[in-house]
Amino acid sequence: MKQLLLLAAPLLMAQAPAASPPPSLVATSADEIANAAPANHWLDISPDHIMVMDTAVGQMVIQLAPQFAPMHVAAIQKLVRAGRFDDGRIVRVQDNYVVQWAAKPEAGKQPVSQPPDVREQRLRPAPLPAEYERSIDDVAFAPSPFKDSYAEAGWVSGWQAARDSSTGTVWLAHCYGTVGVGRDMPPDTGDGAELYTVIGHGPRHLDRNIANVGRVLAGIEPHAALPRGTEALGFYKNEKQRVKIARVRLASQIPGFPRWQMMDTASPSFRAVVQARANRTGFFIRQAGAADLCTLKVPVRELK
Amino acid sequence: MKQLLLLAAPLLMAQAPAASPPPSLVATSADEIANAAPANHWLDISPDHIMVMDTAVGQMVIQLAPQFAPMHVAAIQKLVRAGRFDDGRIVRVQDNYVVQWAAKPEAGKQPVSQPPDVREQRLRPAPLPAEYERSIDDVAFAPSPFKDSYAEAGWVSGWQAARDSSTGTVWLAHCYGTVGVGRDMPPDTGDGAELYTVIGHGPRHLDRNIANVGRVLAGIEPHAALPRGTEALGFYKNEKQRVKIARVRLASQIPGFPRWQMMDTASPSFRAVVQARANRTGFFIRQAGAADLCTLKVPVRELK
Repeated sequence: MKQLLLLAAPLLMAQAPAASPPPSLVATSADEIANAAPANHWLDISPDHIMVMDTAVGQMVIQLAPQFAPMHVAAIQKLVRAGRFDDGRIVRVQDNYVVQWAAKPEAGKQPVSQPPDVREQRLRPAPLPAEYERSIDDVAFAPSPFKDSYAEAGWVSGWQAARDSSTGTVWLAHCYGTVGVGRDMPPDTGDGAELYTVIGHGPRHLDRNIANVGRVLAGIEPHAALPRGTEALGFYKNEKQRVKIARVRLASQIPGFPRWQMMDTASPSFRAVVQARANRTGFFIRQAGAADLCTLKVPVRELK
Repeated sequence: MKQLLLLAAPLLMAQAPAASPPPSLVATSADEIANAAPANHWLDISPDHIMVMDTAVGQMVIQLAPQFAPMHVAAIQKLVRAGRFDDGRIVRVQDNYVVQWAAKPEAGKQPVSQPPDVREQRLRPAPLPAEYERSIDDVAFAPSPFKDSYAEAGWVSGWQAARDSSTGTVWLAHCYGTVGVGRDMPPDTGDGAELYTVIGHGPRHLDRNIANVGRVLAGIEPHAALPRGTEALGFYKNEKQRVKIARVRLASQIPGFPRWQMMDTASPSFRAVVQARANRTGFFIRQAGAADLCTLKVPVRELK
């Protein structure tokens, strides 16, 4: 059976070594570089910024990005702490696009249904402002050395991002595993009670059109493998098809939940990861010499 | 329930209108443009270049690209006509990467297993040359108006492609739904008996490292939703997990199989599709003004 090629890890899961050797900056694989990166090339992720979602098909661990969408993240944290996502539903799976899920409507026991009725809308939290991009002031943007089809690609504190120098703004890029906030047609209707993650080619055309609030750290696989919805836009047809969310907690609410780290994108180790992903060896007989932003994922790891 | 956004069709499935009105080149959606495109903006796909695969989870319709990998395509057509894919198996599903399947080994009834034993290797067809790129002579390359992270992006006769003017070559790009030929470490070991399709972010670093032979026209959804394999690289662990392929035929072998067309990428309609995908309206409050090659899919349609 042909291997086809080296591992393209969805989001790199390196085990933290007990004692980290100095980073090797010679051309090795991204995994090897991550495994060799010293402790000070990693950034801790606050357990208040990790959302743990237990569904009927598995556990999805999501990192929130308050530096990009502070009001949305605060609203989501509040919903989580209030148990609003418990007994929620995955309501939509569209091939090469998104898995989308919704908090349980507050108005009693009725199942999630589409479209939402007026009563449900009224009971939802107030709409949030359009936190689709932020000022480039006070953030350190590490530019990608490679071309980008959409804007200037790069990284901000461990996140795949893009910037527009003419508007002076920076935003989280839509890539595989990015988590965003669903909204209706007006741009201010997202309230954090309906979220999605990308399960296809990075839909960068969504950048600056919707609030990105985070990314999946682990557990996307069984959710990306859910049956695609048969209704328009991949919505599930009825309650029987929807996938139950047992509960959602912040990692800070779960005693003993593992710590997570992301690689510091300003570190020499990350620069080496970028070069390794652009110039793959082994199976590869010809190096691309470049890579697009969504391919240049930031290594993350669970500390065990 | 929030719609999140307009349809991002995996591969556009427009119904051919009975009488095509003249193309509208004003900014409408890609679907509207495809539906309005006149008949002479579409190219027929030969039924000899369509592979119809019936698996335990559905039917996948694949278009072959003989102009890019003639020897591989000829070998695959020969395997199909000989029934070699019948009772084959889907052997690997790696999240955000590929679904991979294999013909039934010729040596009797033993199940597909990994790694292939020496006997199986001997009985396989001879390895094919590395048809990873071809000369730009004699092909019309329509360049994309937008930047590409990897090379010069564009289209050749209805296919997403990239070129390198310095080497004088052009190749099929790895995007969602692209079909390629698995190989082992040496670059000449692909024989067409093990194929894959991309089910994640376009792995363009594979370009020029492997033979691309086609793309999925329809039916990728249930296959992209298969359980991810738990072994290294997403291989399934055992025969019980593997997904059975009932049979594979060329469309030309199936009486009454529908005709398929692809949009002519040299046509004004396709130029309008590109602009519509780069400047989406409706839900989108800010147009990207650009798009990457894998997002700029070529419309295809089944004639009913």
